[in-house]
Amino acid sequence: MAENLEKLRHSLAHLLASAVLKIDPRAKLGIGPTTEDGFYYDFLFSIKVDESLLPKLESIMKDLISQNLKFVGKKISFPQAKKIFKNQPFKLELINDLKKYGTTDFQEIQLIKAKKKKAKKLARVTIYQTGDFIDLCRGGHIKSTKEINPQAFKLIRIAGAYWRGDEKNPMLTRIYGVAFKTEKELDEYLKKQEEAEKYNHRVLGEKLKIFLISPYIGKGLPLLLPKGEIIKNILIKYMRKKEEKYGYTYVATPHVASSKLYEKSGHLKYYQNEMYKVIDPAEGEDFYLKPMNCPHHHLIYQELVKSYRDLPLRLAEAGAVYRVEKSGETYGLMRVRGPITQNDAHIYVNEQNLEEEFLKVLDLLSEVYDDLKIIQNYWFRLSLPDFSGKNKEKYGGDLRLWQWASKIINNACQKKKINLVKGLGEAAFYGPKLDMQIKNIYGKEETIATIQVDILVPKRMGLVYVDKNNKEKNPIVIHRAILGSYERFIGFLLEATKGDLPLWLSPIQVLILPVGNEHQDYAEEIKQKISDFRVEIWPAEESLAKRILLAEEEKIPVILVVGEREKKNKTISLRLRHQKDLGEKKIEEIIKLLNEEGDIPN
Amino acid sequence: MAENLEKLRHSLAHLLASAVLKIDPRAKLGIGPTTEDGFYYDFLFSIKVDESLLPKLESIMKDLISQNLKFVGKKISFPQAKKIFKNQPFKLELINDLKKYGTTDFQEIQLIKAKKKKAKKLARVTIYQTGDFIDLCRGGHIKSTKEINPQAFKLIRIAGAYWRGDEKNPMLTRIYGVAFKTEKELDEYLKKQEEAEKYNHRVLGEKLKIFLISPYIGKGLPLLLPKGEIIKNILIKYMRKKEEKYGYTYVATPHVASSKLYEKSGHLKYYQNEMYKVIDPAEGEDFYLKPMNCPHHHLIYQELVKSYRDLPLRLAEAGAVYRVEKSGETYGLMRVRGPITQNDAHIYVNEQNLEEEFLKVLDLLSEVYDDLKIIQNYWFRLSLPDFSGKNKEKYGGDLRLWQWASKIINNACQKKKINLVKGLGEAAFYGPKLDMQIKNIYGKEETIATIQVDILVPKRMGLVYVDKNNKEKNPIVIHRAILGSYERFIGFLLEATKGDLPLWLSPIQVLILPVGNEHQDYAEEIKQKISDFRVEIWPAEESLAKRILLAEEEKIPVILVVGEREKKNKTISLRLRHQKDLGEKKIEEIIKLLNEEGDIPN
Repeated sequence: MAENLEKLRHSLAHLLASAVLKIDPRAKLGIGPTTEDGFYYDFLFSIKVDESLLPKLESIMKDLISQNLKFVGKKISFPQAKKIFKNQPFKLELINDLKKYGTTDFQEIQLIKAKKKKAKKLARVTIYQTGDFIDLCRGGHIKSTKEINPQAFKLIRIAGAYWRGDEKNPMLTRIYGVAFKTEKELDEYLKKQEEAEKYNHRVLGEKLKIFLISPYIGKGLPLLLPKGEIIKNILIKYMRKKEEKYGYTYVATPHVASSKLYEKSGHLKYYQNEMYKVIDPAEGEDFYLKPMNCPHHHLIYQELVKSYRDLPLRLAEAGAVYRVEKSGETYGLMRVRGPITQNDAHIYVNEQNLEEEFLKVLDLLSEVYDDLKIIQNYWFRLSLPDFSGKNKEKYGGDLRLWQWASKIINNACQKKKINLVKGLGEAAFYGPKLDMQIKNIYGKEETIATIQVDILVPKRMGLVYVDKNNKEKNPIVIHRAILGSYERFIGFLLEATKGDLPLWLSPIQVLILPVGNEHQDYAEEIKQKISDFRVEIWPAEESLAKRILLAEEEKIPVILVVGEREKKNKTISLRLRHQKDLGEKKIEEIIKLLNEEGDIPN
Repeated sequence: MAENLEKLRHSLAHLLASAVLKIDPRAKLGIGPTTEDGFYYDFLFSIKVDESLLPKLESIMKDLISQNLKFVGKKISFPQAKKIFKNQPFKLELINDLKKYGTTDFQEIQLIKAKKKKAKKLARVTIYQTGDFIDLCRGGHIKSTKEINPQAFKLIRIAGAYWRGDEKNPMLTRIYGVAFKTEKELDEYLKKQEEAEKYNHRVLGEKLKIFLISPYIGKGLPLLLPKGEIIKNILIKYMRKKEEKYGYTYVATPHVASSKLYEKSGHLKYYQNEMYKVIDPAEGEDFYLKPMNCPHHHLIYQELVKSYRDLPLRLAEAGAVYRVEKSGETYGLMRVRGPITQNDAHIYVNEQNLEEEFLKVLDLLSEVYDDLKIIQNYWFRLSLPDFSGKNKEKYGGDLRLWQWASKIINNACQKKKINLVKGLGEAAFYGPKLDMQIKNIYGKEETIATIQVDILVPKRMGLVYVDKNNKEKNPIVIHRAILGSYERFIGFLLEATKGDLPLWLSPIQVLILPVGNEHQDYAEEIKQKISDFRVEIWPAEESLAKRILLAEEEKIPVILVVGEREKKNKTISLRLRHQKDLGEKKIEEIIKLLNEEGDIPN
């Protein structure tokens, strides 16, 4: 089924190339693979093109489909192939690679060149013909175009792409298409994309004045506007309250550290390219912006812990870290250079208590996501080392220690009846980890929370405690981030709710609208009674209808309208977000609602 | 009176030099001026010296004093002077300077060399003789040593100092003395110094585990340990609550910004040497760690403000900034490279409302310092520009605007009956400012809070709003920091209270001590009842007396002892910090105490 869809998409790529040559016979062809939702094909056009070309190409492709053309494969010799593609320089390059290396895969070719791999000897190459169009292609096609539903594909986008992804090569024009079995699937997909474009957090963030990207600060360095800061502050308060209940203590560490720290922790060796260096004009000492909070916390461990009696130590920090990103790859609050304000904590524990502490972290995690309700379709991935694989050297230390730590996580997950997807070879360099995964608004998998067991760095950093038998030991460290980073979490929240944040997280919780200026006093009186909450009054400078419309656009969850009748009856007229007027209510009912849903959950 | 004390101190410096020559006749003499509390003299010894020399020197000085020696001044010619000081190379250097430039003042000599000032012509130099000791000296002495109370001075310290403060010159040995009119004054001074050494925030910070300086992070980059972080967090929560009441909204901005921002704001021109540069390994764009939050806030202003209706805008942030300091000049939490977490806010206001907003800031300030009680002996300094002085060019813009802004501050202070000390020429480059001053534990003046009126940067940064007449205008900005920086404020708090923080700011508020293991359950029961506060139980692993001692050392304000009697009577035995056992109390009394004094003040 899935394989068939692959074939269908790849066959559509051939039809796209065939259509392009009908419009621009001198176009040079790149390659045309499938993607997660469809396919693309790269072209060097001899004519000027833009998105207006897409419907024309679609129409030619539909015409080809209606002809019930067969996809016919054929093996031919290298000289024959060169003759067929004599006017297609990119294809000729591929043919030469096939001859020389037996592959067109760039990475494989590099390995062969570096003599780490042997070249395969090919006697012939494969071509596929559909109608009058011939492509160099190793295959994977449907039998005939009649298998394609002409209403179930669409060309969606034009983009630039360097030939073979190398910026030294010419820039080609990439045409993207999406394709499904049925028209219904396509429609659903397109609708979802449209929704995603409308409700992605960058769009909502701008509309709701949550954050700002300014060229004067830099790409990937968002500023939280008052409404964004409120959400962040409430989330931090919420997590701190929970964490303090679970026995965490907070610390506050600088955003920079001497290179000495990162030499000791190993970051400078492994992560230097992801770290921003800081220059001291006075003394020339090298500092770095911290890319993680752990080494800082480890120093605090050394200050506070002497014996097993001091364990477990649970250090938490809403610590802002910075990591190198290319400006072009930054994305709203989701992918930033910084601040990445981690919901960070490090739990230092002896071996005997690792499972118990891991279970407590799982308890905290489910408590939090139960409260939040919003993020629901998540699953867990256990990332383990792969000692058989080629990245074996990545995993330092003792194999038995790795197996032991992996087993502890497994046991804990079993006790909590957590279903695991396992990822071999995906562990951190210092130990196995459990990630909580979600799909973002575009359907892409993302990690939202992580719990990592560190069996290596404590030893490397010289973290010790004296056990009951007066023996020096290294603790195990659980690194965990229940909400990931606060900025990123705000992004997820906005997208998951389409901006309709729950009452306790809404920047403005209650809006009071006096019908006329003569009701302003009464509005103030109501505001006074609910002053523990975030309340605004919008005076009668605009019409009531206009103000209600603006309030809906601002996603304010509770609107209280007060006019002559309400003033006289000592009531308010209630409107909840996306609902009509719910009629006159007593202020006590509003206070009850706010007390129940407006405060940080316990 | 004060002049006389100066003379007395300077005369003691001569006696010190005389005493030194009696012990080391080959010692070379530097200079011996007065200090704030006494005097010093610099020597190049031919013998090895340490602090054990000080009592010997004191004893010789006392002997000289008892001889009722006269200080006799005399004017002599340059050749005569050179003859007298032929074995004193530093004195000869000074004599040469006097001949050439008419002064020994280093800065003056530089001005003369640069031809910005004319040399004075001197015909003779002055020498002073006391007993057999002669010094090159312009004078300012008492008449006779009998004016000196030999019990009212003390040599206190030896330090190294380069000749004339220049590191290219030889390192001399500086001997410091303190001197007063009466023995009582000396005793009081020494006691105060001893207290300061015992209760300075670095000592308390280490003892109470408030913060940590680690060579792996760097000097001047303190990490707040759990107990320090709690104090910071409570102070931030306290200020935010107050500020929200006063209509401030919070924002959160990155710790770095592109050089473009600081070019626009003028910081790169004026403050580049105080800013840490950040290197981006991926794209080579220049960033800086922010030395101030204002330029970031100005960008948010531009996003949020269109018209006069949007004013005043009060943006607040507990924003961490970093400023270059030499490692040798950093000091605990008081003088750091960072984080300097500013209790920062910027109030954007139109001209008509400046006084009103300034008054509101003064209201907030007095509300806060009334709550805090701890910081009491403060005064205010109004820093104005000096348009007549030599730094005139420092103050940009329109003279009338400066006068207008200064008058507004003056008026506001008059309305609040604030007495002002005025500092001409001490204004910020962008406007006049009002600073709240205190004396630190060593008696040195420090700024603890600041309110600054900015009449220049809004224009430079292009901040505008449209007024009632549809005209574009620049706002005025009030920069204000009521608690200064949180880290520094914690330092002041520790020193002002000698570590006895008030209940609401204490990291551990209540300690419960079960007399024996059999009272642990009851202790837990009590803890449950006051779980909204910061409570610890120290189990009966150590004797009660030992635990009480440790608790006193940790400065815990409330100790509840629970034993057999208390368990039976459903009571606790109360001890308040530095008090004896206050007897059995009902738990309700403790809850009352905690509710009254344990929460953040309203």
